[in-house]
Amino acid sequence: MALYDLGSLLERLRKERPLVHNITNYVVMNFTANTLLAMGASPVMAHAVAEVEEMVALARAFVINIGTLSEHWIEAMLKGGKRANALHIPVILDPVGSGATSLRTRTFQMMAGELKLAVVRGNASEILSYASEAARTKGVDSIHSVEQAAAAAGETARRTGAVVAITGPVDVITDGNTLIHCSNGHPLLGTVTGTGCAATAAIAAFAGITPDPLEAAAAGLAFFGFAGELAAEKAQTPGSYQVALLDALYEITPEQLQAGAKLERT
Amino acid sequence: MALYDLGSLLERLRKERPLVHNITNYVVMNFTANTLLAMGASPVMAHAVAEVEEMVALARAFVINIGTLSEHWIEAMLKGGKRANALHIPVILDPVGSGATSLRTRTFQMMAGELKLAVVRGNASEILSYASEAARTKGVDSIHSVEQAAAAAGETARRTGAVVAITGPVDVITDGNTLIHCSNGHPLLGTVTGTGCAATAAIAAFAGITPDPLEAAAAGLAFFGFAGELAAEKAQTPGSYQVALLDALYEITPEQLQAGAKLERT
Amino acid sequence: MALYDLGSLLERLRKERPLVHNITNYVVMNFTANTLLAMGASPVMAHAVAEVEEMVALARAFVINIGTLSEHWIEAMLKGGKRANALHIPVILDPVGSGATSLRTRTFQMMAGELKLAVVRGNASEILSYASEAARTKGVDSIHSVEQAAAAAGETARRTGAVVAITGPVDVITDGNTLIHCSNGHPLLGTVTGTGCAATAAIAAFAGITPDPLEAAAAGLAFFGFAGELAAEKAQTPGSYQVALLDALYEITPEQLQAGAKLERT
Repeated sequence: MALYDLGSLLERLRKERPLVHNITNYVVMNFTANTLLAMGASPVMAHAVAEVEEMVALARAFVINIGTLSEHWIEAMLKGGKRANALHIPVILDPVGSGATSLRTRTFQMMAGELKLAVVRGNASEILSYASEAARTKGVDSIHSVEQAAAAAGETARRTGAVVAITGPVDVITDGNTLIHCSNGHPLLGTVTGTGCAATAAIAAFAGITPDPLEAAAAGLAFFGFAGELAAEKAQTPGSYQVALLDALYEITPEQLQAGAKLERT
Repeated sequence: MALYDLGSLLERLRKERPLVHNITNYVVMNFTANTLLAMGASPVMAHAVAEVEEMVALARAFVINIGTLSEHWIEAMLKGGKRANALHIPVILDPVGSGATSLRTRTFQMMAGELKLAVVRGNASEILSYASEAARTKGVDSIHSVEQAAAAAGETARRTGAVVAITGPVDVITDGNTLIHCSNGHPLLGTVTGTGCAATAAIAAFAGITPDPLEAAAAGLAFFGFAGELAAEKAQTPGSYQVALLDALYEITPEQLQAGAKLERT
Repeated sequence: MALYDLGSLLERLRKERPLVHNITNYVVMNFTANTLLAMGASPVMAHAVAEVEEMVALARAFVINIGTLSEHWIEAMLKGGKRANALHIPVILDPVGSGATSLRTRTFQMMAGELKLAVVRGNASEILSYASEAARTKGVDSIHSVEQAAAAAGETARRTGAVVAITGPVDVITDGNTLIHCSNGHPLLGTVTGTGCAATAAIAAFAGITPDPLEAAAAGLAFFGFAGELAAEKAQTPGSYQVALLDALYEITPEQLQAGAKLERT
């Protein structure tokens, strides 16, 4: 039996076309916008401190992605996030590169401290950078298995109050209690820049449809990963694969998603 | 009989390869540059206050696109625009998101007040944000027909002194007196981010060739919309469609454009 | 006999996946990251003054590309470059638009003065903007032949201490003593934005593998140009060509590169 009714969720997404406001990094802005359009959502990008509160109020989800940070943008991220919190608009954080520089690690921690985050999505090292010192000092090389990733995600979920998703060969998604595995995806996704960031945007699009962040995270990762699988049937090289991926995001039907999602509650 | 000799215009564009200077939003910079290159023009992007006047002096058209604003960029837009005005280089404005936030609405109004604009291109709600309060308070939902769009464009044209183009299922283009309809285009253009911004850049490329802004706007929208039609014969999904669109911009011959343009003076 | 063992070099690159830190222009960030991923390297983009030193320390090469400058970025470029110099990480400069505005010309000169550059890659007019006044005042139109390009590159190499590469129909690469010609490439590369910048990034990827900047520059240009040739066998229009180019960067085998590189020591 399917864990969620992802078919209905996708149907609603395509009908309601939720506006997703992104403050994201320069590298992936175009691909993120095209991902959201292709799957059926509406993207908007706006980062000016002077307009971020007004723009986020129009949106049904707000993405904060710290991939190319600068001070002014941190201010806009916080301002937009606080307004989103006040309006009960879900805030989705992608802590790109957290752990690689102290600016990014600090920004992740500060965002989690100042904002109520609905979902945090990252790879193992990014999520681990938020974990307890004991966990952190072992480093990312300490995560060798899905079990270890689940432990790191669980700890971060409990500390932040957010649903935490660690993407990898098998994704783990948890609110600190319930743990879901998602095994959709394809290695070719790693040959195109911004696919992780696009997966985060897909989570945000679903968070604009369902009030349950665990469901939104599971739906976004299953949907995006499944598109990655379908694209790999069409193309095996990065340029063609990126094109096929956008095509797949557009073409997946609710029935296909319902049948193709590989979600498991453990 | 064809309204303009678009074939000759395209031939001259491909021969002279006008340099188009863009201060545009982060999301679409790459696609805009590729659009200009594919159609036969030369793109340059430069936004530093310290160099914008020097750069614009080398160009034959200047695009201001307010899709991802910040204070420093507004200063550079104005500075570049004033220099362009002094040198009689046409300034093309794309007021992305005007009406959605007050920063954008104010910026549109300020640009129109401080600069002599050759062409303004937007969708109905963006153009309406500049119109009289009476028109504005009715809101974008008041525009249900081509006639109503033409009225909004006409009022904005008379108030700004610019040619105003509202793109939609049928585009309206007017200098406040003459009214042109353009029915080139395809719904798939809405599945790729930045196609509106790219249409604006196409107008600018033609404005670098003809001194008549009405002709430039009509040529740009007919050409870009026609490319959108040809692309839809090759691809029906967003990833492939974007690729086919760039290919079409490159492949359209002067004869095809002359035959395929759907322009009508009403 | 082949000038370098490019096959082994590419093999090592694909195995070691060197991290290349880029401060590059907004227009090409996405395409640069995808170029590096497709060829087998690892891209990172980070420009914040607060983190650039920490990030560059993780990288094996550092690219400075001045295509969309602003003051804060110049500060970050210098800071990152100095840290890279201290750590003996090669710094690769792409002086986009130098000669077009005085901000860019000054920035090129300042970077060359303050930093130890491993490689500078530009077109003839960009490199000439650094040359002696005598050479400069003749202007870019003075470069009509490979011999004249070689002279300009040689002078700039001797003045900067860097390997200088001028790309054109035939690329010239020199450290001021040895002169190499590379005749890989294809005219269609000029129909896609950012291919010059991507060639610079390819040089940086090889500079992360070999300590010899002349070899890195020759390898990067031969590899990227050869990919351009293979792509032209698959596609003849810009949208499809860009896709085929990324595919080729991924597909080229060490044997193909060794056989297809057109490098010549003169």
